[in-house]
Amino acid sequence: MRNVEFKPIVAITMGDPAGIGPEILVDTMLSPIIHDICKPLVIGSIEILERVAKILGKELKYNKISKPSEGKYEIGTIDIIETGVYDVETLEWGKVQKLGGRMSIDWIDKSIELGMNKEIDAVSTAPIHKGSIKLAGVQEPGHTEIYQNRTNSPYALTMFSCHKLRVFFVSRHMSLIDACKYITKENVLESIINIDKELKNIGVEKPHIALAALNPHGGDNGLFGREEIDHLIPAIEKAQKMGINTVGPIPADSVFHMGKSGCYDAILSLYHDQGHIACKTYDFEKTISVTFGLPFIRSSVDHGTAFDIAGKGMAGSTSLIEATKIASEYAILMRSREE
Amino acid sequence: MRNVEFKPIVAITMGDPAGIGPEILVDTMLSPIIHDICKPLVIGSIEILERVAKILGKELKYNKISKPSEGKYEIGTIDIIETGVYDVETLEWGKVQKLGGRMSIDWIDKSIELGMNKEIDAVSTAPIHKGSIKLAGVQEPGHTEIYQNRTNSPYALTMFSCHKLRVFFVSRHMSLIDACKYITKENVLESIINIDKELKNIGVEKPHIALAALNPHGGDNGLFGREEIDHLIPAIEKAQKMGINTVGPIPADSVFHMGKSGCYDAILSLYHDQGHIACKTYDFEKTISVTFGLPFIRSSVDHGTAFDIAGKGMAGSTSLIEATKIASEYAILMRSREE
Repeated sequence: MRNVEFKPIVAITMGDPAGIGPEILVDTMLSPIIHDICKPLVIGSIEILERVAKILGKELKYNKISKPSEGKYEIGTIDIIETGVYDVETLEWGKVQKLGGRMSIDWIDKSIELGMNKEIDAVSTAPIHKGSIKLAGVQEPGHTEIYQNRTNSPYALTMFSCHKLRVFFVSRHMSLIDACKYITKENVLESIINIDKELKNIGVEKPHIALAALNPHGGDNGLFGREEIDHLIPAIEKAQKMGINTVGPIPADSVFHMGKSGCYDAILSLYHDQGHIACKTYDFEKTISVTFGLPFIRSSVDHGTAFDIAGKGMAGSTSLIEATKIASEYAILMRSREE
Repeated sequence: MRNVEFKPIVAITMGDPAGIGPEILVDTMLSPIIHDICKPLVIGSIEILERVAKILGKELKYNKISKPSEGKYEIGTIDIIETGVYDVETLEWGKVQKLGGRMSIDWIDKSIELGMNKEIDAVSTAPIHKGSIKLAGVQEPGHTEIYQNRTNSPYALTMFSCHKLRVFFVSRHMSLIDACKYITKENVLESIINIDKELKNIGVEKPHIALAALNPHGGDNGLFGREEIDHLIPAIEKAQKMGINTVGPIPADSVFHMGKSGCYDAILSLYHDQGHIACKTYDFEKTISVTFGLPFIRSSVDHGTAFDIAGKGMAGSTSLIEATKIASEYAILMRSREE
């Protein structure tokens, strides 16, 4: 998967400074695996990192830079870009607060500026808090929408990466009843076309895409639901006619099991929990969210700010390390494709 | 979990003789793990086993018995109960056929007779074919309904066992839209009460039952669906008032991950695929179906007859070994409870 010649520059945004983001970022920046695969830099605050360093009992060295080209990218020194001066003294661990939201969003905006200018190759985001960014005047509910809107991207396609599983979604944040109604030939076909396009962008030649079924046993020939007959099979047939290498619908309790061996390039799940349950029950910490359709690769841990344990040195950094690794890998794939 | 003093007698029904049942049964009967934990006997046909033995290149020794008390239960000798003479010569591998259905159902009926007479402690069933039993005049779609009806049991409660996960279902074989509509306070409460009762029957003192949510993020306070507010929370509150140790609703993409560590005695899933995706993506071969509510424990592999590979010596017996092991473990638990 890796082109060892090219080390992408990956910006890691610190996330909500009152959450576990700053803590898990320290371990990530000190990880040899990460420095082996990419040039990582932080977009955040040295003052916050110093607070965390004390809790973790670590002495950190910084290289404060104003642009990615100034980075040393040496293990042991944290290259960091700051975005201004904040009243960090007033920030409280584990609280929904405007200042936390303000800092979170400034760091995201900086990553977008650098990504649009091609000064970085990818972004790996630590968790933010919906409540805090709302207090800071942000309307979007989360990272994906913020990155889509502020990069003027026509769509943002979320993919879960979990070991060899790559899982996409026809719909995400809607009720299960609404998600069932959203399963139309047109919506499913549009997802398949977008997945095919994005996987080709990262160099997958003829993406093999499996479609999950909606009903138990794939509806058992209409016995338990007709969505397979009325929408899913027609969508697959149409996609195949367009030359897309797609199969299904495959009963959802088999397709993810089969996909674990890497036999598909991607699985299209039909609703939020379908793909989420599969990946997160399989390996919670290695479930990484990747956003396609933006001018740069963006990955994210799939856990939250964990305010209840923030500032206690208890949070594990496995997910942020994995997210940063995945961001690098996809940035390398995308670069290989462009060359 | 085991009471080493007591070795339950577990009958293994051969399943559809044209499927992989007979093959996977041979390895199961020769497994030291199985003989260590129980006294296994086959309900099936020596002629069929001889066909299989040739394919597998094995020489088998039999102890043909008419009742379980005649069994030797020694590794290397297969204790077997037959149910009559069949025209086995005409049976074809991998075909839906009346004879296969007839034999399947006769063996199931024998297991029920022995179970009702308390001559065996549990049944582990190899897969049958819906089409073949239909040709033999059986109306029920599968094992669970056959065992429920023919033992006159008021209900048959399916549980999936997968390592430390125990997963129950509010509904199973209905469309996802219908399953969503089936989520009422009454139906969920009834499931919780039955689970509590059945787990107490196997000696779990104050069963800790987690309820999965229906909508993404558990509906996010009604933002994506109201089933949690209107039905699931009221069902939990009512169950708690009745003294049942239950929690939830917990977002479905977390509850199974959390359950893997064994922190709940059971998880109640709300629709077929919710629990199926979790268990089968986690570990397909170790996902075993257990039926509670019958006069005896019944377990089953969760794969089918695999007609495409039947009679080729290719089928793996991991699932039937696990199913037989689980049947024994639950029979031991039930016996400990009765003592």
